[in-house]
Amino acid sequence: MVTSVKPKILITLGDVAGIGPEIVVRAWLKPCLHELCCPVIVGDVKRLEATLRHLDYSAQIVQIDSLAAIWETQPHQLICIQSTSENLDSIPLGEVNPRAGKAAYDFLIAAIDLAMNRQAAAIVTAPLHKMALKAAGIPFPGHTEILADRTGVSKFAMMLYGKGLAINHVTLHVGLREVLAGITHSNIVEKIELLHEWLCMFNGSPPKLGVCALNPHASDGGLMGDEEARIISPAIATTQSKGIRASGPWPSDTLFRRAFQGEFQGVVAMYHDQGHIPMKLMADWAMVNVTLGLPILRTSVAHGTAFDIASHFRADSASLLEAVRVAVQWAKQSNVRS
Amino acid sequence: MVTSVKPKILITLGDVAGIGPEIVVRAWLKPCLHELCCPVIVGDVKRLEATLRHLDYSAQIVQIDSLAAIWETQPHQLICIQSTSENLDSIPLGEVNPRAGKAAYDFLIAAIDLAMNRQAAAIVTAPLHKMALKAAGIPFPGHTEILADRTGVSKFAMMLYGKGLAINHVTLHVGLREVLAGITHSNIVEKIELLHEWLCMFNGSPPKLGVCALNPHASDGGLMGDEEARIISPAIATTQSKGIRASGPWPSDTLFRRAFQGEFQGVVAMYHDQGHIPMKLMADWAMVNVTLGLPILRTSVAHGTAFDIASHFRADSASLLEAVRVAVQWAKQSNVRS
Repeated sequence: MVTSVKPKILITLGDVAGIGPEIVVRAWLKPCLHELCCPVIVGDVKRLEATLRHLDYSAQIVQIDSLAAIWETQPHQLICIQSTSENLDSIPLGEVNPRAGKAAYDFLIAAIDLAMNRQAAAIVTAPLHKMALKAAGIPFPGHTEILADRTGVSKFAMMLYGKGLAINHVTLHVGLREVLAGITHSNIVEKIELLHEWLCMFNGSPPKLGVCALNPHASDGGLMGDEEARIISPAIATTQSKGIRASGPWPSDTLFRRAFQGEFQGVVAMYHDQGHIPMKLMADWAMVNVTLGLPILRTSVAHGTAFDIASHFRADSASLLEAVRVAVQWAKQSNVRS
Repeated sequence: MVTSVKPKILITLGDVAGIGPEIVVRAWLKPCLHELCCPVIVGDVKRLEATLRHLDYSAQIVQIDSLAAIWETQPHQLICIQSTSENLDSIPLGEVNPRAGKAAYDFLIAAIDLAMNRQAAAIVTAPLHKMALKAAGIPFPGHTEILADRTGVSKFAMMLYGKGLAINHVTLHVGLREVLAGITHSNIVEKIELLHEWLCMFNGSPPKLGVCALNPHASDGGLMGDEEARIISPAIATTQSKGIRASGPWPSDTLFRRAFQGEFQGVVAMYHDQGHIPMKLMADWAMVNVTLGLPILRTSVAHGTAFDIASHFRADSASLLEAVRVAVQWAKQSNVRS
């Protein structure tokens, strides 16, 4: 295999009652997608046909059983691996449906297995709906947990990427009341190192990392909390002693402006909203989720199924295209080939 | 007095070792300032002269003792009330200096007393430095506490305003560990009502208000905390029953995008960084601090003394001009005349 071969990127359809099929078709019709990579849709042929009709496009759909013979793709010819036995024909747009939930799960499992078998370089996922998964009896709340379970991983992390900035979180999906217990030396060191390693690989050079304070004004010298002096600063020092270019703790309300202006390539946030508020404001449709710690590469759109606009057919494929772009660069930089 | 008279706006010089004098002079030279209002500088004549020389401007400085005769101002003629007896001539830029701290305090006290005597419509403050205040032996940490003490007020609130959006906070200058204790029914109701009343006055119509959740995803139905269901929702309902158009609790990472796109005129944040991160990112130099609850009107630039760039003379007066604009609209809408 030679390096000039385009990486194969598996794109799952997600929940077919949402905007997943629409954004996948819209992205497919863009020549830039095919210049970047060799994409393959992991989904349902009939539902793709219906989406083409809704969008009034006349592209052809080619159903394949194996990825082996696919090396080049074209905007007018959608390549799809049929990956569910659910009948999705009559599922209405914009509603929770157990068959759509089961199919979204089927697509993801098929994509994971192909990637684990090194038949593709990375997975890019369209959104699924937590309630549809639940209605289908799938015992996982979302993509990340399914990915972790299927690939046998217990330690993983979600990273946000957009506008050239990567953000990860010391604590993530916990209530604010639980945040303080998660702000520990080892957790902070782990997240700084994880972000450092990924950005070294992704950008090809050691990044500058800014670490958020937990408290307003970074506690103003201890006037508003002591976690900066007691926990965060020593953790940063530990990573600095290993040669990592981390600094902080910085007051978070000024750090993000500096970071988006290019002073930092990565930011470590202390909790969910501290990282999500600025990234959603600044990157919007260009924001991508990246799952770290898996044995396969996976990125995702950062938006949901958008049931409220699914029947309007005016969704934007920018986040999906950006998720593909990040997956391709990640695959190339980490020498994952397929 | 007739309503067509321009409101008198007192502009304090702030800490003369910082960018205060520079931004005041830069703002004064703009004709739009004089179209908006009748500004008067509360400061030090000699330091203003030095600033004009640094900036290579040849405007005249007119020292006045009383505001009574001032109704129109011009860009080429700076009007200043000498308000300190400190000798500020040799104070270097960019350093903490007790005389600069004392003078900044003197300017503020003079402005407060003039406004309390109804000789001016509002005060707009340039930044002071907390350490310089402390070095001067002033027993207050900053502007707000001096304002509250001098005007005899114990209940006040800081609001952020920028890009047409107003943000206030249920808890503000406390460590994250103390935030939960401040998230109470009465605190939330009070902040929603305060924001509602101010925006009704400022915009002349009842605003739509978005209230932030405390937890990620607004707790995802109780999976990550219960403060939304237990405290925030009932508090919002209380204000709705009084006719206030408040809604939420919304996940904060999507609420701010919706708000900056115009869906809401005000947002109530639960803690400091939740409100400051988005406002500093989006409004930058156009962000203004507004102090609610005082018997006088006061707005402020939202940036600090910027000691690091004070000797470079490349500061931006946009935040000061925006603070004047907000003060003028506030004075007009609330019928404060002077």
